[in-house]
Amino acid sequence: MSDRIGFVGLGRMGQPMALNMARKGFALNVFDTRPEQQQPFTEFNTCEQVGSAPEAAKGAGCCITVLPGPAEVDAVVLGAGGILDNLEPGSIMMDLSTILPEVTDKVAAACKEKGVHFVDAPIGRLASHADAGESLFMVGAEKEIFDRVKPMLEAMGTTILHCGGPGSGTRAKLINNFLAITSCWMNAEAMALTKAFGLDLATTLDVIHGTSATNGQLKMNYATKVFQGDIEPGFQIDLAHKDLTLIVESANKAKVPMPVAAAAREALSSARASGWGGKDFSGLADYCCELAGVEKARL
Amino acid sequence: MSDRIGFVGLGRMGQPMALNMARKGFALNVFDTRPEQQQPFTEFNTCEQVGSAPEAAKGAGCCITVLPGPAEVDAVVLGAGGILDNLEPGSIMMDLSTILPEVTDKVAAACKEKGVHFVDAPIGRLASHADAGESLFMVGAEKEIFDRVKPMLEAMGTTILHCGGPGSGTRAKLINNFLAITSCWMNAEAMALTKAFGLDLATTLDVIHGTSATNGQLKMNYATKVFQGDIEPGFQIDLAHKDLTLIVESANKAKVPMPVAAAAREALSSARASGWGGKDFSGLADYCCELAGVEKARL
Amino acid sequence: MSDRIGFVGLGRMGQPMALNMARKGFALNVFDTRPEQQQPFTEFNTCEQVGSAPEAAKGAGCCITVLPGPAEVDAVVLGAGGILDNLEPGSIMMDLSTILPEVTDKVAAACKEKGVHFVDAPIGRLASHADAGESLFMVGAEKEIFDRVKPMLEAMGTTILHCGGPGSGTRAKLINNFLAITSCWMNAEAMALTKAFGLDLATTLDVIHGTSATNGQLKMNYATKVFQGDIEPGFQIDLAHKDLTLIVESANKAKVPMPVAAAAREALSSARASGWGGKDFSGLADYCCELAGVEKARL
Amino acid sequence: MSDRIGFVGLGRMGQPMALNMARKGFALNVFDTRPEQQQPFTEFNTCEQVGSAPEAAKGAGCCITVLPGPAEVDAVVLGAGGILDNLEPGSIMMDLSTILPEVTDKVAAACKEKGVHFVDAPIGRLASHADAGESLFMVGAEKEIFDRVKPMLEAMGTTILHCGGPGSGTRAKLINNFLAITSCWMNAEAMALTKAFGLDLATTLDVIHGTSATNGQLKMNYATKVFQGDIEPGFQIDLAHKDLTLIVESANKAKVPMPVAAAAREALSSARASGWGGKDFSGLADYCCELAGVEKARL
Repeated sequence: MSDRIGFVGLGRMGQPMALNMARKGFALNVFDTRPEQQQPFTEFNTCEQVGSAPEAAKGAGCCITVLPGPAEVDAVVLGAGGILDNLEPGSIMMDLSTILPEVTDKVAAACKEKGVHFVDAPIGRLASHADAGESLFMVGAEKEIFDRVKPMLEAMGTTILHCGGPGSGTRAKLINNFLAITSCWMNAEAMALTKAFGLDLATTLDVIHGTSATNGQLKMNYATKVFQGDIEPGFQIDLAHKDLTLIVESANKAKVPMPVAAAAREALSSARASGWGGKDFSGLADYCCELAGVEKARL
Repeated sequence: MSDRIGFVGLGRMGQPMALNMARKGFALNVFDTRPEQQQPFTEFNTCEQVGSAPEAAKGAGCCITVLPGPAEVDAVVLGAGGILDNLEPGSIMMDLSTILPEVTDKVAAACKEKGVHFVDAPIGRLASHADAGESLFMVGAEKEIFDRVKPMLEAMGTTILHCGGPGSGTRAKLINNFLAITSCWMNAEAMALTKAFGLDLATTLDVIHGTSATNGQLKMNYATKVFQGDIEPGFQIDLAHKDLTLIVESANKAKVPMPVAAAAREALSSARASGWGGKDFSGLADYCCELAGVEKARL
Repeated sequence: MSDRIGFVGLGRMGQPMALNMARKGFALNVFDTRPEQQQPFTEFNTCEQVGSAPEAAKGAGCCITVLPGPAEVDAVVLGAGGILDNLEPGSIMMDLSTILPEVTDKVAAACKEKGVHFVDAPIGRLASHADAGESLFMVGAEKEIFDRVKPMLEAMGTTILHCGGPGSGTRAKLINNFLAITSCWMNAEAMALTKAFGLDLATTLDVIHGTSATNGQLKMNYATKVFQGDIEPGFQIDLAHKDLTLIVESANKAKVPMPVAAAAREALSSARASGWGGKDFSGLADYCCELAGVEKARL
Repeated sequence: MSDRIGFVGLGRMGQPMALNMARKGFALNVFDTRPEQQQPFTEFNTCEQVGSAPEAAKGAGCCITVLPGPAEVDAVVLGAGGILDNLEPGSIMMDLSTILPEVTDKVAAACKEKGVHFVDAPIGRLASHADAGESLFMVGAEKEIFDRVKPMLEAMGTTILHCGGPGSGTRAKLINNFLAITSCWMNAEAMALTKAFGLDLATTLDVIHGTSATNGQLKMNYATKVFQGDIEPGFQIDLAHKDLTLIVESANKAKVPMPVAAAAREALSSARASGWGGKDFSGLADYCCELAGVEKARL
């Protein structure tokens, strides 16, 4: 099996991750619909810039995709003449996108039929972690395939978790993002109430972080972004809304009532309608303070 | 000013806290409506068991109350012939209960009129922390009064935070409990979805705790209670519902929209209607799994 | 028993109702804290303008109150030297305010102890109906007392419904207002979606009113107010929010989960925070369209 | 253009509607995947039972579909060798299913490209209305095409409303079903509270129907179904949940925040998880009463 790896999707997450692979010596066929995103790979003579996604897959032992959502994965991987049509039996198709479980299952089934091994390994943590090669991966794969992709994932991240067979990575990612995004909005309500009550923010945070009321979004994301007055993404509210939509829909199909997830999703929908979609999701605090007519929470 | 301290309310939180004060040598007048709750104080000859709340206050330099809710604080402190009528100017009235800000403000105003210093210092952390003398206190008090009560609070806890003037402790507590209780329910939704997706719990928790999706409830409360199959309180769902009600009502008065808090409150209301009110609030996970028809989340 | 009737509270609802009684020949002692509200009664020589609520009650066979909320009823009726202290055994205390069931029960119990008959008869329908003497009353009273107050209520309204013993009028009113106010917000969501979909409003209303999707708020209140561009109250969003708060709190005490009521209450809370509190509750449609960034629904 | 009409989908709604057309003399090619559903058409010698959906369309001047949801419409109409491939330019493809606007738009565009006229005409009112030929249709069609299909629709219904161009019928239906289904759940909350308050149901309904709190679901659907102890469908909770899901998703795509719709959807999701999915949607009242631990609302 060839050691070359196709890498399709060089956006805010995909590009730094592919660069980390290139720096560690992996030989890549890179592709993005925006040619300027391929530019930084010029300096690696092990990397080839190709003209389409299927070309990236042709002859590769593994093809990696980092795409915006389920529709793109479906089209680019399964479309006629797409990635799957260009992969050989025994090779690996590894998708790092955050998508609907049912699309993951559909791609996995199509791969299986062609004798291609499927891996879903969505990305945990933030864009800044991807830059630093410190991502976390939730991996759905057969055990022996997990062992084959692990070195690649270790080039891009520090925590590689084997969640179970194909499809389990995507599902674990949805659970994870549900908690991260809903926490983010919950914190926004708390911040608006903190300001409405006229409390000092720093002391209030000391209280929260001193008890079981603390959460990772408040401690990590809020602390470095919105509390410093920086709400440029990072992770956009539009994307958080998209993820929460995947979660709410999956839960509804699974007959799991999630009233808090649903309320949070509508809150993000309000934020988007009011023009906040392009801001970092910690910026939900500013939106909520604006809604409540109080001043913003800043350290 | 007398060094004797009135201590009124010796329930699941008040009793161990008063015992910690007694052990550290404070001279207490203790009272609870259930005489058996006073029993353990027999062994301290610095402690006197009295027959009523006003008697506990009489002649004391400070009177401490740990009562179930706003109605009890209002009646016991402000009622005719109650605690306030028995405190001398210059003494301190310190309430550790979790109550409505407006009741705190009303008690504070009544104290001020009588020349009594008011402190609100509601308790953070769990009953097990109170047992161990490791509580956290959110203190609303004038600076010089804070300095006077600090040694008392240090007898009962390890983290004493001065949140601002009278009333700010109660408000900080509400923010804190909003996050703790809403996280607790949010986790319950996440656990039901984890089981519905057929994911391994331990690996899913590794994912969550490896990202900003983590929260203190999941890491501390869930880990030691519901994941071990123990849903005896701890902190009852009924009390969590009461606190969330105080929060939602205060937020509504302050015109702060809190759709996620409101959805969580109704979820707890469902749990209570289904007979779960007496269970630990981490038991919400079991309730949510039952609702979704999936097996319980256990490690 | 004297035929004179005390009438306390001459606001947007109380004034036209008292005027209707005066026109039909009832002898009233009228009082409002705003003297100008008493002015129109100058023309009736059967009416006396008095200087306080207790004075209105003194010597009356029946005292009627129409007050803003539970706190006012509690203070004005039960306060020391208040209305109840001035009513004689055998007389009737009839409250038309919309208040919490527990306050109604408290007032009823206090009346009973003094031998005064208590009636709760909150008002249905809109301010324009009160003007026209076409209100609906939900009456909680013993049967024989109902027969005594019925002629008074018939002077102010066209539909007098005996709901059961004391306290049942208030409870029926809460159910009623829950449906009216929540429908009103539900319609607002529907109107925003209608405009976002680019549908013709008149045809869409033909569809709705042709099926079981129709509701009284859309057919009556929306048709005459917001669809005509008129969002002056009528019934203010602030008052609708207050009522919905009474309902959600009563339901929570009764352990009845009401997730839709709770979501609607938060939506009204948002509207208030954004400055819409003084508008007619059909104006929620305009608020929701603004939130969604679409044009307003007008016929 | 041929007068023959293809009619695909003979379920609880489609069968009685097709029978009404047959009785009025229309010549039909009928098809359902369950052959027994075609049985009743044996008695009409103008009707032909065919073996597939495309066969029903072949040579027809109009093909009508009544299918469960968007996936079925997409597959049956647009699939290779499907209905559209068998319709001639100038003929009409009329879909009566309740589906996502984007699927309607996709089918409409595909029809246009082939020179086939597309009509979306989803069905209003209940199954009993379909039986009686008293349905309401919300029609999206070009004006001249509307005139061509109107006689067919008049064979099945009494109210034929032209909502605008192709796609507008589907959108009007979503608005309509949002109101009907959300009202239905709102009523369920009201009924649980009515029983918890111990109020008499008949009198409470007199109150509600005497004010703007009334709604069509309570007056029509509840009165004839759940209040009589009959919760057999009618319109299943599972289908109501499916429709509400279409609505919430469409609204989210349109950036219209619908917190009440979202809360209602989760409530129906709870009902389904608890085994109520197959009951009539007025049965939500029984589910909600069960949740609240009160007795059912019966007249």
